Amino acid sequence: MRLVEELGERKIIDIILGSLEAMPNVSVPFGDDVSAVDIGGGRLAVIKTDMLVGKTDVPQGMTFWQAARKAVVMNISDLAAKGTQPQALLAAIGLPRGLTEKDIEQIGRGLNAGARQYGAYVLGGDTNEASDLIISCAAFGTCEKRSFMRRSGAKPGDLVATTGFFGKTSAGLKILLEGLSASPEVREQLVEAVLMPQARLKEGLALAETGAVSASIDASDGLAWSLHEISRASHVGFLIDILPVADASVKFAEAHSLNPSELALYGGEEYELVVTVKPKLWNRAEAAVKKVGGSLTKIGIVTAEPSVLLKTEEGTIAVEARGWEHFKTA
Amino acid sequence: MRLVEELGERKIIDIILGSLEAMPNVSVPFGDDVSAVDIGGGRLAVIKTDMLVGKTDVPQGMTFWQAARKAVVMNISDLAAKGTQPQALLAAIGLPRGLTEKDIEQIGRGLNAGARQYGAYVLGGDTNEASDLIISCAAFGTCEKRSFMRRSGAKPGDLVATTGFFGKTSAGLKILLEGLSASPEVREQLVEAVLMPQARLKEGLALAETGAVSASIDASDGLAWSLHEISRASHVGFLIDILPVADASVKFAEAHSLNPSELALYGGEEYELVVTVKPKLWNRAEAAVKKVGGSLTKIGIVTAEPSVLLKTEEGTIAVEARGWEHFKTA
Repeated sequence: MRLVEELGERKIIDIILGSLEAMPNVSVPFGDDVSAVDIGGGRLAVIKTDMLVGKTDVPQGMTFWQAARKAVVMNISDLAAKGTQPQALLAAIGLPRGLTEKDIEQIGRGLNAGARQYGAYVLGGDTNEASDLIISCAAFGTCEKRSFMRRSGAKPGDLVATTGFFGKTSAGLKILLEGLSASPEVREQLVEAVLMPQARLKEGLALAETGAVSASIDASDGLAWSLHEISRASHVGFLIDILPVADASVKFAEAHSLNPSELALYGGEEYELVVTVKPKLWNRAEAAVKKVGGSLTKIGIVTAEPSVLLKTEEGTIAVEARGWEHFKTA
Repeated sequence: MRLVEELGERKIIDIILGSLEAMPNVSVPFGDDVSAVDIGGGRLAVIKTDMLVGKTDVPQGMTFWQAARKAVVMNISDLAAKGTQPQALLAAIGLPRGLTEKDIEQIGRGLNAGARQYGAYVLGGDTNEASDLIISCAAFGTCEKRSFMRRSGAKPGDLVATTGFFGKTSAGLKILLEGLSASPEVREQLVEAVLMPQARLKEGLALAETGAVSASIDASDGLAWSLHEISRASHVGFLIDILPVADASVKFAEAHSLNPSELALYGGEEYELVVTVKPKLWNRAEAAVKKVGGSLTKIGIVTAEPSVLLKTEEGTIAVEARGWEHFKTA
């Protein structure tokens, strides 16, 4: 019988999902960024839990404050992708022995900072003794049913866009974990992306208001994976014209003879939103994001054929369905 | 500077709470069994997270199915104490290497069984690699604001009652962990209490309907601790006349020359409700619980003096503010 470390995260999730009874008329199917319950009056209660584990999610160089803040941001990012304002966070914490009073205070302050940055509050939680640092947050918010953005509504001909540029986190991790060098300016941007992730909440809320978005996902498992997820949920494909690679990642890739497209496609923990937009409403979507200080970058088009393709100078290539996955370093 | 293992869970919670900004006009203060957000229309969204950690919460003899079910029941019990029907559960899971496909399936089935037993569904979650087995559940439900049962409303003269009898879990743990003996019948009851905890949801919902309850808590940290928690939150005390000790625990205590009162007061993980009831509405409360197949046992009275006292044959003694606490085995 196969062991956890041989299965990979997706297979493990499939096994667990296979053991669960589905709620009749559930508002959001298993596997979307969040779960939701209909609370009447045309509104949904949106809930999400995502767990941070020290040994896999907290790279060297990240403080306790940053780790706790990240544990909150991870959850808020999923609500952002659905157009839901987070109101409350809960934090179930596992603390290994050897942590100090000061470390715990930093964890508390990091949780608070993450929540308050996005207009939410930490309302409660639970503390436990554990071998790893564990910060398992749950986020709660409500939204209008009609403005909730699913993964499943993309239609051929829709435009696909992102709220920012990719490749910074994977490059930043190479600096922090593998000791790769970078100029101070490049280094700062790349490391900052790892240590201080930002959820695109303003952008998500603004996009939800427009009614222009047909599908949306938080790209925390990487750009390639996110495109494949929308592809699966919406039964469509993508033709990507331009990869949105961050300038700092391009410079970093050049300096180390790395492929910038690889960094941008197959990284993870990049909390940009990947959305599909009805073409007639593109201007509205773009303007709404600009109005809140963000940007929406068109990267390609939704296709009927369920494959994810990328135009390159060498021709059109298939984007693989891979990204960050727990248990895969076994 | 003090380390986690020297601080104890209460102090750790205090440090974290001291780092958090409080939500203005929050519906339920920090430290109650659950958190809540006002969703308008006289209703509250009730949310709770409680984490199960293998090495501290899963005794020898407990299967993966039972552990996962327990992780759900722990959370549902807190909603029960507040009179809230759970609708949705989320489960963030940490899996140590070496677990098999079958173990994971058992975890999935245990989660489902715990939720379905109480009319809820598991809607989502997250899986991770961790050193310990971690099952961190979050529960969600809504309730009428006016029927929400706090810890803070007990008034002198109110009656204090429990939905069941205590001491089974602490005795059951002595059987499982220390190998103490018991007759088959006694053993079955005591071990069952540990392996298959039951949340008093029907009782909690029925009590909330009556409007008779002035304060309520889930006794998962033990009877003594629960009384002290209501005492703190309500600024009252208790005079306990009769300790509600389970028959099986009395028999077990006799056989091993243990003090049955100790077993009943200072155990933990007993998911009975401890409630205070307005004396004029006692009959209504008792009848409501009976109607759903439960029982409400009067154990004493609320006093103005903020101390928790127990009448015994040797006179009135103080009940200590101790119970199950993580980090305290250091």
